[in-house]
Amino acid sequence: MKKVYIGIIGFGNIGSAVAEFIKKNHQVIMANAGLDLEIKKVCDTRPLKIAYPLINNYLDIINDPDISVVVEAIGGENPAKKIILAALNKKKHVVTPNKEVIAKNMKVFLAAAAKNKVQLLFEASVGGGIPIIQPIKESLAGNKISQIYGIVNGTTNYILSKMSSNGMEFATALKEAQDKGYAEPNPKADIEGYDAAYKAAILAMVAFKAEVDWQKIYREGITQITQEDIQYAKDIGYVIKLLAIAQKVDGKIDIRVHPALLPADHALAAVADNYNAIYVKGTPMGPLMFYGQGAGGGPTASAIISDIVAAANDKCQMTNDKLRKVILKKIDEVVGKFYIRLQVPDKVGVLAGISKIFAQKKVSIAAVLQKESNGKVVTLVILTDQVLEKNLRAALSVMKRLPIVQKVSSVIRIVA
Amino acid sequence: MKKVYIGIIGFGNIGSAVAEFIKKNHQVIMANAGLDLEIKKVCDTRPLKIAYPLINNYLDIINDPDISVVVEAIGGENPAKKIILAALNKKKHVVTPNKEVIAKNMKVFLAAAAKNKVQLLFEASVGGGIPIIQPIKESLAGNKISQIYGIVNGTTNYILSKMSSNGMEFATALKEAQDKGYAEPNPKADIEGYDAAYKAAILAMVAFKAEVDWQKIYREGITQITQEDIQYAKDIGYVIKLLAIAQKVDGKIDIRVHPALLPADHALAAVADNYNAIYVKGTPMGPLMFYGQGAGGGPTASAIISDIVAAANDKCQMTNDKLRKVILKKIDEVVGKFYIRLQVPDKVGVLAGISKIFAQKKVSIAAVLQKESNGKVVTLVILTDQVLEKNLRAALSVMKRLPIVQKVSSVIRIVA
Repeated sequence: MKKVYIGIIGFGNIGSAVAEFIKKNHQVIMANAGLDLEIKKVCDTRPLKIAYPLINNYLDIINDPDISVVVEAIGGENPAKKIILAALNKKKHVVTPNKEVIAKNMKVFLAAAAKNKVQLLFEASVGGGIPIIQPIKESLAGNKISQIYGIVNGTTNYILSKMSSNGMEFATALKEAQDKGYAEPNPKADIEGYDAAYKAAILAMVAFKAEVDWQKIYREGITQITQEDIQYAKDIGYVIKLLAIAQKVDGKIDIRVHPALLPADHALAAVADNYNAIYVKGTPMGPLMFYGQGAGGGPTASAIISDIVAAANDKCQMTNDKLRKVILKKIDEVVGKFYIRLQVPDKVGVLAGISKIFAQKKVSIAAVLQKESNGKVVTLVILTDQVLEKNLRAALSVMKRLPIVQKVSSVIRIVA
Repeated sequence: MKKVYIGIIGFGNIGSAVAEFIKKNHQVIMANAGLDLEIKKVCDTRPLKIAYPLINNYLDIINDPDISVVVEAIGGENPAKKIILAALNKKKHVVTPNKEVIAKNMKVFLAAAAKNKVQLLFEASVGGGIPIIQPIKESLAGNKISQIYGIVNGTTNYILSKMSSNGMEFATALKEAQDKGYAEPNPKADIEGYDAAYKAAILAMVAFKAEVDWQKIYREGITQITQEDIQYAKDIGYVIKLLAIAQKVDGKIDIRVHPALLPADHALAAVADNYNAIYVKGTPMGPLMFYGQGAGGGPTASAIISDIVAAANDKCQMTNDKLRKVILKKIDEVVGKFYIRLQVPDKVGVLAGISKIFAQKKVSIAAVLQKESNGKVVTLVILTDQVLEKNLRAALSVMKRLPIVQKVSSVIRIVA
């Protein structure tokens, strides 16, 4: 039985879960993978009482000739970046769940891994316990992948699910998510879509071998989603989800993160609570979806252990892709359907005026639904056909300057 | 670039799709897998006009020293069994979508593969284009898998979906499935659960490394499911799906195929039309679901190509498991909840009598719903708590002999 010595850097929730399940599932890992995994050293700056040799300088791990796999479980970009590069340059395989450092530095990491003939594996960085990176690389190797979109942030999915099922407003649902530990005390990275943008960048880099500057990803969070929109969407057969989208369109790569109306019968629409799911389309496989727990110590440890196994078994062939330069599609150039909620004066001729502005800007309307009125102001829900985003923005910009529209309350993209 | 010569035996829908996408996606496969795949020979007994050297004796493929991977795409047990064994013994990797031959002969195939240091891969045999076998073996290698259940037959899922969404009776939905090509002219293998039983056997063998005699799998098809049951199930928040189930219970392996009531908010409940989805539970990963097209030339070709890539890249470590003897749980020993529909006389005291019989046989009732009555006969829907299947059968057997029950119309298990 091949012995594999592992060093874990960062022993918080995730690092300790990896250690826990390498121990608890030792027999099953031997049976499944033919590997005897052993944690040789743990690096953490805190004075932990643990059953493993504890060091406080990561160099003691990356300079240890016995250790072949380093698990980076600190999180954040720094000092994780320095540690990962140093480990790769010491010819250690590196496994990490750290989406931020991977999204920001994948190209330089892959180059260092290739140079040193080791692997950089990051299954846990997207979708937690859901196998997605390895399946894209291996199980889907025979496919032209055209589109990936998914629910990759459990916090926002929990909030949107509660808003949909319990009628809560955003602030109440966020509070509940925080109380349950699904949202951080400072929830910005989740609710403003940063976390999802990192994951969108990683998915695009893996699926399209595309170099992606994550800062250029269009990003919109869920803080503006209201109970009214959830209900109106439901009335017309949609649910609202925060989606990370990466697709090939006209030779460009279109990557974005934003709330979207999904048809209620779409496979992703049923993904509730803090679950994640990633929908992948390709030829010849058709549409696939991968669903599971997107966070948490256990699920993340499952993904990290699978990467340790893959690295130790030297499955080098399909990893360490070279990323190529691509053109990212600007959000203005994206073509799609929209849901728009407007407050307008309850007067004759208003709808004709609005229709005229849309028509002037080449925005074709698919449906107009008149919602409640207080006698003075009426709520209109407008669904567009496929339109160029730039044109829609132009039309809304004109409307905002005219008395014909009191308020543009919501503009949400419709996907699928 | 490593050149890989492939021989395809059987050039029907699937064999030709494999050839088509090896050609169409040649560039992308090179980029993804670092392999130059080439079909050297095709074996078919029909006089096909194709762009590949056509032979009619499979020995010309398995004796060809250039060919390293043989794709068996004939289907059925014979002569596929003989061909697969011969190919393995000639030290060829074998890739097949043939669930029947794999379910019936996995142990002997794995032994031959191990002896000859080649691989037997069958990703396409369960779930068509859905990656499930390879993820179980590799991505979930760090987990103790406890339970797998899924919708693994697209024909029956299409029929049940139509019955649910369009109010069709079974016979009408079957006819529509046949007209659309989703069901065979002789639909027995699908609607009576044989196809699902093969797949249940394969999933159990892969996930639990258990030797499974597929003939001992409890199997019940969907021919008895009526529109009434679909509607009553809907009323109480359930959908009816044909499930293949494989789980570890009390040191035994419980494998069965039968229709089941699933809660409407279960991830599998939303799997509509001819889609497949497989739900897997394990520790520490939590629940996962894999969803996609379970049949068809394209999806099946996607899975076969991924196996060709895996075989050619010599990912031998986690394949060719040795299967161990296990005890299969008998259906009588299974504990679960039930939905029961009875026709009873519309008289005082009937419910008390029924309750008494259930109590005598230790069947605990969770709910009784009185449905329509014509004045003489009333329909009762009874939901049980967790009960031993043997006890339920005993109670129903008593009832059938007494005037208190006119007819036991349906007995359907409730899962999850």
